[in-house]
Amino acid sequence: MLGNTFGRVFRVTTAGEAFGPALVGIVEGVPAGIPLTEAEIQRDLDRRKPGQSAISTPRQESDRVRILSGTLDGVTTGAPIALVIDNEWATLKHIAAYADEKDIIKPGHATYTYFAKFGVHRDWVADGRANGRETAMRVAAGAIAKKLLAPIGVEIVAYTKELGGVRCPEMSYERIKEHADEPPVRCPDPEAAERMLERALDAKAKGDSLGGIVEVIARGVPAGLGEPVFDKLDANLARAMMSIGSVKGVEIGAGFAVAGMKGSENNDPPYIREGQIAFRTNNAGGILGGISTGEDIIVRLAVKPTPTIALEQETVDMVRRRSSTFRCKTATDPTIVPRMIPIAEAMMAITLIDHAMLARSQEHRKES
Amino acid sequence: MLGNTFGRVFRVTTAGEAFGPALVGIVEGVPAGIPLTEAEIQRDLDRRKPGQSAISTPRQESDRVRILSGTLDGVTTGAPIALVIDNEWATLKHIAAYADEKDIIKPGHATYTYFAKFGVHRDWVADGRANGRETAMRVAAGAIAKKLLAPIGVEIVAYTKELGGVRCPEMSYERIKEHADEPPVRCPDPEAAERMLERALDAKAKGDSLGGIVEVIARGVPAGLGEPVFDKLDANLARAMMSIGSVKGVEIGAGFAVAGMKGSENNDPPYIREGQIAFRTNNAGGILGGISTGEDIIVRLAVKPTPTIALEQETVDMVRRRSSTFRCKTATDPTIVPRMIPIAEAMMAITLIDHAMLARSQEHRKES
Amino acid sequence: MLGNTFGRVFRVTTAGEAFGPALVGIVEGVPAGIPLTEAEIQRDLDRRKPGQSAISTPRQESDRVRILSGTLDGVTTGAPIALVIDNEWATLKHIAAYADEKDIIKPGHATYTYFAKFGVHRDWVADGRANGRETAMRVAAGAIAKKLLAPIGVEIVAYTKELGGVRCPEMSYERIKEHADEPPVRCPDPEAAERMLERALDAKAKGDSLGGIVEVIARGVPAGLGEPVFDKLDANLARAMMSIGSVKGVEIGAGFAVAGMKGSENNDPPYIREGQIAFRTNNAGGILGGISTGEDIIVRLAVKPTPTIALEQETVDMVRRRSSTFRCKTATDPTIVPRMIPIAEAMMAITLIDHAMLARSQEHRKES
Amino acid sequence: MLGNTFGRVFRVTTAGEAFGPALVGIVEGVPAGIPLTEAEIQRDLDRRKPGQSAISTPRQESDRVRILSGTLDGVTTGAPIALVIDNEWATLKHIAAYADEKDIIKPGHATYTYFAKFGVHRDWVADGRANGRETAMRVAAGAIAKKLLAPIGVEIVAYTKELGGVRCPEMSYERIKEHADEPPVRCPDPEAAERMLERALDAKAKGDSLGGIVEVIARGVPAGLGEPVFDKLDANLARAMMSIGSVKGVEIGAGFAVAGMKGSENNDPPYIREGQIAFRTNNAGGILGGISTGEDIIVRLAVKPTPTIALEQETVDMVRRRSSTFRCKTATDPTIVPRMIPIAEAMMAITLIDHAMLARSQEHRKES
Repeated sequence: MLGNTFGRVFRVTTAGEAFGPALVGIVEGVPAGIPLTEAEIQRDLDRRKPGQSAISTPRQESDRVRILSGTLDGVTTGAPIALVIDNEWATLKHIAAYADEKDIIKPGHATYTYFAKFGVHRDWVADGRANGRETAMRVAAGAIAKKLLAPIGVEIVAYTKELGGVRCPEMSYERIKEHADEPPVRCPDPEAAERMLERALDAKAKGDSLGGIVEVIARGVPAGLGEPVFDKLDANLARAMMSIGSVKGVEIGAGFAVAGMKGSENNDPPYIREGQIAFRTNNAGGILGGISTGEDIIVRLAVKPTPTIALEQETVDMVRRRSSTFRCKTATDPTIVPRMIPIAEAMMAITLIDHAMLARSQEHRKES
Repeated sequence: MLGNTFGRVFRVTTAGEAFGPALVGIVEGVPAGIPLTEAEIQRDLDRRKPGQSAISTPRQESDRVRILSGTLDGVTTGAPIALVIDNEWATLKHIAAYADEKDIIKPGHATYTYFAKFGVHRDWVADGRANGRETAMRVAAGAIAKKLLAPIGVEIVAYTKELGGVRCPEMSYERIKEHADEPPVRCPDPEAAERMLERALDAKAKGDSLGGIVEVIARGVPAGLGEPVFDKLDANLARAMMSIGSVKGVEIGAGFAVAGMKGSENNDPPYIREGQIAFRTNNAGGILGGISTGEDIIVRLAVKPTPTIALEQETVDMVRRRSSTFRCKTATDPTIVPRMIPIAEAMMAITLIDHAMLARSQEHRKES
Repeated sequence: MLGNTFGRVFRVTTAGEAFGPALVGIVEGVPAGIPLTEAEIQRDLDRRKPGQSAISTPRQESDRVRILSGTLDGVTTGAPIALVIDNEWATLKHIAAYADEKDIIKPGHATYTYFAKFGVHRDWVADGRANGRETAMRVAAGAIAKKLLAPIGVEIVAYTKELGGVRCPEMSYERIKEHADEPPVRCPDPEAAERMLERALDAKAKGDSLGGIVEVIARGVPAGLGEPVFDKLDANLARAMMSIGSVKGVEIGAGFAVAGMKGSENNDPPYIREGQIAFRTNNAGGILGGISTGEDIIVRLAVKPTPTIALEQETVDMVRRRSSTFRCKTATDPTIVPRMIPIAEAMMAITLIDHAMLARSQEHRKES
Repeated sequence: MLGNTFGRVFRVTTAGEAFGPALVGIVEGVPAGIPLTEAEIQRDLDRRKPGQSAISTPRQESDRVRILSGTLDGVTTGAPIALVIDNEWATLKHIAAYADEKDIIKPGHATYTYFAKFGVHRDWVADGRANGRETAMRVAAGAIAKKLLAPIGVEIVAYTKELGGVRCPEMSYERIKEHADEPPVRCPDPEAAERMLERALDAKAKGDSLGGIVEVIARGVPAGLGEPVFDKLDANLARAMMSIGSVKGVEIGAGFAVAGMKGSENNDPPYIREGQIAFRTNNAGGILGGISTGEDIIVRLAVKPTPTIALEQETVDMVRRRSSTFRCKTATDPTIVPRMIPIAEAMMAITLIDHAMLARSQEHRKES
């Protein structure tokens, strides 16, 4: 498995499975001299951690992060920052629950693909590294990225745009920002949130699960970030977001709606706003030619319904190659959309700071 | 500009602008001993090249590719393969057409973002490297990738799924494959193709342009390709596709439709087909947990309407920071969706062979 | 600090300072299905750990490694392997010993260069990440690399070739292998070892330190490893070895002696040995054109005398920019050459397995 | 072959063989706005090109470089710079000279290792990519790197330190700089140069060849460049230099001499020079802990005698696996040491600018 690093100059490398001893991360490229404590990282981790509501998995984890290197007296030293989060739930009792079913493909999960890639020695406990638990380390790294973005003036907000067919109405950035984080569904519109919750509880009652859409907005991103032609900002955001488990689609700005638009509708007219160049609309989602325009960067993620459901499903025993059925007995979320919010923010932050640092590397110093 | 390489072990590095002397590419990782001629690469280039129909740009280019290294007597040697395609249209006469408008932001183009990133010394001739012309080298590299995929049994087909609001109906892979490449719109359904062409010609007549959706299918991809957690196959496909100019969204399998689905609907039930593991449906689009399932890999791209339109548009002079207008005088396509087909195929091929080679690197040789 | 990863497909990423909480490593690219326990890794760590002889630092560390991910029931799963080694000596008492002298440049150390790069917030406790302690994680990763090399038939031996001016006489590979690891100096010739020890004890008595040369031999490396033109096998070995603290020179085969040789002397004549191609001499050190020949790979490292000595030295207070003196009060080794042995082996192993895997990625599968 | 890129943010990718149509290079990371013409690059190429003296190969090449992208009106645009140098000598007549001997291992060359790696389809014409000709593109890229280093105040000088056993005496940097480039041997001491030339002509007369040592000095490098622990400045310089064909050893500062030194001798005492931190000696060669000190960076390369000699040598036919002999009939240099000078400078320049840009990427912008 070779894809455990993200970023070129702000680099995040992670390891760790659902029921191994711990999750581990190494974050490189953080300059020296930045105040950084475990408590700050913890704040974002607490937003992701399980067991926070009726529509979240009952798995119990304190998700306590420890910094093992890279800081001295609460300030970064420029050395790589190693982070560790123990898997408290990784006890023999919990692991045992997965042993019976290890040869059965869990529909919608990575059971079979890990088997195809790694064979009988894959980590079969709750899908090992394919389990969403690895995202805790993304969130921890993202908290560091956000700290580096703050002095540049970048702020990032994500929220539940759609859940179980209920869509959050259009609203101002300010209102989104103010209400985005409200539990349990993290939709800033109270009425939509109410209906989303109902549908999630209903799905839960029926042993089923719901998909949805997450929107992530980055405001204050300076124009000029992005490295064409393969590391365009939107290309790397697409990779960042699609690398999150359960994401099946990524769109920027108007996204798939552009398919039905005319050029005269889709082109965002530039104009002068307070002496600066701005755009009357933002169908581009803040990115043109793979480089940021200075407008809000807007990304939406399609999140599939949690594959682990309580209903009995047709499947196969992949070792014995025979038909079987599967009904989930272990912990799960009826929807993971609300828990995606801090993860999507983290991937946005990591991608943006990496690009900001790449841009900085190429700044031209003229002979004085 | 730092993002000119794609891939880790099958590596493509490109350079070249719309009106510079030439496009250049270097392809690494190709094994020795593979027959490879310019004619084979040319076939795919000819499918992308401009000036082929009433709905394509009138720019004239023979897009003749030359191999400058990496082969001997028509067979690869293992050395990096350098490719060059001259820009025949890059004459003073054609360049002059862009000089007057170089300070004017062309709406929907990368004019302003390149200015923000590179300043007054950016290449302003037809947007330089931001112009779609760079994709010719992707197509050339993709032709080499396809050659390496053939012995593995992988074949790739792309087609116009939607154009100007007309959608191609669902049809079998075999029918898609047979009719996918039919000019000028490259939609395998004759009736839909007819209506798409009408709309494109209508848009052209009105000086406007149309967006659409491209679908790319890869059949025969072995289960087990993909490098979690950041280089998942879908993550890298998303990056690959979103890195193509004008693409604003990427989805895999059911894509954004998963937002409205229940787990019980979205999970693809595994079953035994002729002794092998298969899936009754393919909402996953051939990828679970970031690793290929063995089913068809299905990716869709949202392509925005060509930003260069003949209508007058509000804009600004970005150097003088004052209002202006823009009306395109130079060559353009009323829609670029049909020309996207070989490009999307190329990016699929490059991503797949890179992952196949990464998987090979980790094969375990047991002590004999 | 951006250079914490080594390797392209067998990838080692490390973090951790001399007196931080722990050293951390993540090893990617290890196939699934390989038995791997902490005990196996511990064996090599025990060869590097401090406090083992009169000529080694008195620092006390058990250097106990723990595997936090990537294995299940003692077998690798294909997931990245996270390793952690706690810094037991990192107590307030020991840290305090460095506080007084933190603004004083320790001659021969990285004190000033870290200050120049990271400023006042660098980790000043025993030079933080610049301390040789980080090499423990290299040794741990190297133990995993050696496991992967064993089935290919590669074995690696390093030994003290020279110490304090005493040179180990030429001897057969078999004899080197048998006696290489004998403490405390790890020189396979007993007489030379005796004289080296005398000189080291003498230097210690005088508060001074000694340099030396380490030779690393890899036997059984298949012909064909190496990726010209920048990732030639010798180029990456040079990087690997020079990246070890205190190494000031690297040579392959005849090394610097080639400067005084003629082509007719230096060229190794090929001949047929038992039906196979072999070479009568090995001035090339097993590498030609950056690719392994199949002969022993022979690398020598020049190791500088430990900079931390007990003699008073002229220096400066770098914060106040004034003259000062420095005399070491903390733990040190009169020579680090013997402790280099497992580190040099580790870097050889990591480099070789990475190249073996890179070669595997490019193997050509012909259409059947 | 996977190692055709050097650098992380100043990135050089090359392709091309000795007798293929052309050499090709792509240079990424060059900021926009820098005047750059073919003539400037040509200056360094002319210093490397063959056929310039009695001790250089008779191969005739004008080594004319063309810029195919990345500049507009003689100024860089920020886009990748593609370079091409045609192989004028690559005619059927010259290629034919190699056909007879293609199965014979040329002693000291990469003939066998390329055969072992790539098989019968390797490029056998003058060793293809293993031929020193690829270094022309390094020199071209190095010329661009030097342009970027100039405003930082870095200058680079290389010269022949030793040839055929004759060593250049120690002399001041200023004198070295003034006389370093004098043909044909490029040794700044006229008397040593005279004796070197004699030995080279003597070797040539005898059909033999000579090795030597090149010293490269970089002055004006700011303190603080280098990325521990694997991308230390000295580690990457070692890789850069060892990647040049025929180099068998690399040392920094005192280099291998440290093996015989005591800590009290080797440690360079820091002191205050005109208010700045400086060092009384420079055994460190300008690098401590893998990071530049601000003193001159001094690197020496051991260059083996040209393997192609006119004497008859024992060898084997590697295809038929039987004994044979080889006597060179084609063009060669009795020593390549003088031609190494611009190549070594180029690799120093490329490595330094990459590290300067990496350092820049991590500069900390404090909240204002």
